[in-house]
Amino acid sequence: MNIYYPNLENVFHALSDRSRLLMVERLSFGPASVKELAKPLDMVLPSALKHLKVLEETGIVFSNKVGRVRTYELNLSQLNQIDIWIEERKKSWNHSFDRLESFLLESEDINLKGESI
Amino acid sequence: MNIYYPNLENVFHALSDRSRLLMVERLSFGPASVKELAKPLDMVLPSALKHLKVLEETGIVFSNKVGRVRTYELNLSQLNQIDIWIEERKKSWNHSFDRLESFLLESEDINLKGESI
Repeated sequence: MNIYYPNLENVFHALSDRSRLLMVERLSFGPASVKELAKPLDMVLPSALKHLKVLEETGIVFSNKVGRVRTYELNLSQLNQIDIWIEERKKSWNHSFDRLESFLLESEDINLKGESI
Repeated sequence: MNIYYPNLENVFHALSDRSRLLMVERLSFGPASVKELAKPLDMVLPSALKHLKVLEETGIVFSNKVGRVRTYELNLSQLNQIDIWIEERKKSWNHSFDRLESFLLESEDINLKGESI
């Protein structure tokens, strides 16, 4: 695997939970406190903090504490890592289809030539 | 969360393992048998099958058995689901920045007008 994705499986793991996905969705609209993130999910603060810790460990979010309030922000670069990886898969996929198409066209050409002899 | 992503967390879970990521990378170059997928990972066939089952259950890959050989293929539409979800996060993120910029420019404008009085 490409060396540019040292922790891609951890990023995927962090997003493999519906609550954490919803937190990321909320944070894509702007920074939020733990309380603001926990409330719509009907979640107690310790549970929310546990999920946010997973997201923060993989760098998908980061936080700042001002006074007693910790605010979380989204770090898009980690999501971009996924984006680039998927783009690469699509490119390989399309390339393999192009190769197959060329092969089939070539075979067809050979068959046609064979028939005309 | 958008109803168009009924099993997005499961798709992320399927990709939260390095061996499975490498299998998806391999399959993006074209179909492969269990043997072909297991070999470069130095994996015994039952382990490879276990990982492929996880990928198949979420629809990231599908398989066909011809005779005694089962061949796996990549289903790009599940990766596209991730792609679209990330795109939406980026849009929300950029939109929230635009709003912040407008707010700051407006505030600056008000301040300048205030100063000129």
